[in-house]
Amino acid sequence: MPYFDAASSAPLHPMARAALQAALDEGWADPARLYREGRRARMLLDAARETAAEAVGCRPDELVFTASGTHAVHQGIAGALAGRRRVGRRVVVSAVEHSSVLHAAGEDAAVVPVERSGRVELAAFTAALAGDTALACLQSANHEVGTEQPVAEAAEACRAAGVPLLVDAAQSLGWGPVADGWSLLTASAHKWGGPAGVGLLAVRKGVRFAPQGPADERESGRSPGFPNLPAIVAAAASLRAVRAEAAAEAARLSALVDRIRARVPELVPDTEVVGDPVRRLPHLVTFSCLYVDGETLLSELDREGFSVSSGSSCTSSTLTPSHVLRAMGVLSEGNVRVSLPYGTSAQEVDRFLAVLPGVVSSVRERLGVPVGTGADAAGPAALVVDALGKRCPIPVIELAKVIGRVPVGGTVTVLSDDEAARLDIPAWCGMREQEYVGAEPRERGAAYTVRRLV
Amino acid sequence: MPYFDAASSAPLHPMARAALQAALDEGWADPARLYREGRRARMLLDAARETAAEAVGCRPDELVFTASGTHAVHQGIAGALAGRRRVGRRVVVSAVEHSSVLHAAGEDAAVVPVERSGRVELAAFTAALAGDTALACLQSANHEVGTEQPVAEAAEACRAAGVPLLVDAAQSLGWGPVADGWSLLTASAHKWGGPAGVGLLAVRKGVRFAPQGPADERESGRSPGFPNLPAIVAAAASLRAVRAEAAAEAARLSALVDRIRARVPELVPDTEVVGDPVRRLPHLVTFSCLYVDGETLLSELDREGFSVSSGSSCTSSTLTPSHVLRAMGVLSEGNVRVSLPYGTSAQEVDRFLAVLPGVVSSVRERLGVPVGTGADAAGPAALVVDALGKRCPIPVIELAKVIGRVPVGGTVTVLSDDEAARLDIPAWCGMREQEYVGAEPRERGAAYTVRRLV
Repeated sequence: MPYFDAASSAPLHPMARAALQAALDEGWADPARLYREGRRARMLLDAARETAAEAVGCRPDELVFTASGTHAVHQGIAGALAGRRRVGRRVVVSAVEHSSVLHAAGEDAAVVPVERSGRVELAAFTAALAGDTALACLQSANHEVGTEQPVAEAAEACRAAGVPLLVDAAQSLGWGPVADGWSLLTASAHKWGGPAGVGLLAVRKGVRFAPQGPADERESGRSPGFPNLPAIVAAAASLRAVRAEAAAEAARLSALVDRIRARVPELVPDTEVVGDPVRRLPHLVTFSCLYVDGETLLSELDREGFSVSSGSSCTSSTLTPSHVLRAMGVLSEGNVRVSLPYGTSAQEVDRFLAVLPGVVSSVRERLGVPVGTGADAAGPAALVVDALGKRCPIPVIELAKVIGRVPVGGTVTVLSDDEAARLDIPAWCGMREQEYVGAEPRERGAAYTVRRLV
Repeated sequence: MPYFDAASSAPLHPMARAALQAALDEGWADPARLYREGRRARMLLDAARETAAEAVGCRPDELVFTASGTHAVHQGIAGALAGRRRVGRRVVVSAVEHSSVLHAAGEDAAVVPVERSGRVELAAFTAALAGDTALACLQSANHEVGTEQPVAEAAEACRAAGVPLLVDAAQSLGWGPVADGWSLLTASAHKWGGPAGVGLLAVRKGVRFAPQGPADERESGRSPGFPNLPAIVAAAASLRAVRAEAAAEAARLSALVDRIRARVPELVPDTEVVGDPVRRLPHLVTFSCLYVDGETLLSELDREGFSVSSGSSCTSSTLTPSHVLRAMGVLSEGNVRVSLPYGTSAQEVDRFLAVLPGVVSSVRERLGVPVGTGADAAGPAALVVDALGKRCPIPVIELAKVIGRVPVGGTVTVLSDDEAARLDIPAWCGMREQEYVGAEPRERGAAYTVRRLV
């Protein structure tokens, strides 16, 4: 049963399992104690720290283990901000950072836009560093669309501006070290096949850092609580193991992703593959299917045995599309993220490609999706469609159904209170070569107007 | 090789290991996802929550899993304080709470003294609840001396005062539920034989609680980060398992502890067994040995195969005796905490009792400890001993060496800059029936004066 959601959580790497087993026997005691069980635990902890530091590319005393990647982000951002309190409170982030970074950065953060590929706008990022900026955050690669960020260039801009750069390397650390120049780095073990419960926080020597929260002597005062030693040992061992295989596995999975990127638009009409086609993670690809309800699509794929995730609004508890897709300005309906775990076979990918077209067309059929624009342009020059109370992808389907009824040059206005419409109606216009006139706020939702061009 | 430091961290219970194994296969995916691996993870998480809630004695929706006991304490105290911000910021704690509670409560906390047994002074605790108290914290039982706290009475006082009570049940939850009446409860899985990396935080319905730190949707917003599911499953399974054996095992270990409590003072001269002899944890006993260096004692016991811990100053990085022993006002030198893990045999305890006297006397011999007061009282009526720069137990040994040289009614003044002297010189006077006159601060350390009575 192919699991294609490694970017959420990767299955445990065999090396992680073996190391965890061993460390359950040898590493359950308190490494701060001086008796033999404690000394043994301390040796395991020291060795794990050296292994992880080598993979990160830092000194062991620059690296601490945290309770998760989220904890690493929270503690890293809070500590860096407190260490730079005299400079200011301003945080610069890209618009497509992980939610843990955005939440820790706070509502007053300066959010730098991204290109349609998901890559941060470097000039805007550099400009944002001015003034009282205390910290800048940029992920190494995006978790939803796989686009690699220009970390080296951003680090150079940060160095010139005297601003520390925190790199969230959660998605990429298993594939290789982050480009030099970062001041703080965070990562999460269960993303590379390590166990849950372990994050990494590296803080370069010389970076001002003041740990926040109640005092605790563990992990240089930077990560409170009894260390989760068996999991730490497993995290370090699996990081070394995946790194040893990374180059070969990246080449192999990258070719499989290229196959998906090329074949999906050929096999499934009205799809948009998103994210940078070249500067990207090797194992991750995301596409959106017009006129498809993401939740139904995921559940149909699950029925066929494929586990994938989605940034569509209908699969989130907030009823808004993913902030990443929104920032990129791409279609959000029928969104599918495929992230291949280590060892995924070409056969599994081929089977996915064989199954996907039927699944998408069956979902579309059930939703009554129109075929073609239709030629009957005998209707009025302006039509209004009431899609209030209807969720993605219905407003776009309603639009597609009636666009053929207005003459070329005529307009269709869709009334919708679905947040996804704001993203998907303009995206539909782009895909269909129609003109998006704009949105006007209404008491309930907004009125989206489209001019028929073809 | 007997490991007698269960209160630091218990070896993994066989049930924890088995459950962890199973959950590594079944529970590595994200329980928030809707595909089969996610649904399976969610089922495991739900089942673990029900099991843990039953053991705690709360509703499943009142309980969240945290990354450690320390995280549970930090998040519990911060959330409770934020929820009661309008009432005030004052926190009431006993003087013998775990350091995580004291640090989270902050420097302005009202610290309630304890009796010599380590039991909180209930009248003082009740009185402290007045005014703008936002939260009170009382452990269920002390982690260093095993004394059970009057939680039911404290809860009643809190109820009357309208103050929520947070009970840190880290040391006792494996032995049984906490008495009713608490508002918040925290615990730590590796203390009961569960894995590291799992804490519990229970917040009763109706208790005002506002989670602090960056927003995160996990665990009802009360515990950020990807859930450490295999460890959570193992924690819950092992809690149920130890509870099933708790009554029988408590009776058995309690008898072994009684044996230690009775035999140590008989076998080893000049020892003080501390903590409440009756209202105590079943598996934990602490005693202090006069004229003994705690670090040497631990290392000699380790050489004999016994792993114990100590609250002596010389075994801590801060060079001060444990705050618990200080608050109780008991001897801190040569301090040994024995905490028996599940399954400890009578033979192991007997072997400990057979080994201890020789170890203590060899340490004392090396330190040149005087035997008896000596009868030569022909010296001056007042003697000053310079023990500056000398660490515990040397200042007390120097005192004992010269007390016989002053006549009855004469005084010895010890100059010492060792923090342990403040506790141990009065304790020595109590054990030797000499009069402790008092301490006067000096430029370096203090001058401690003792009057010879016998």
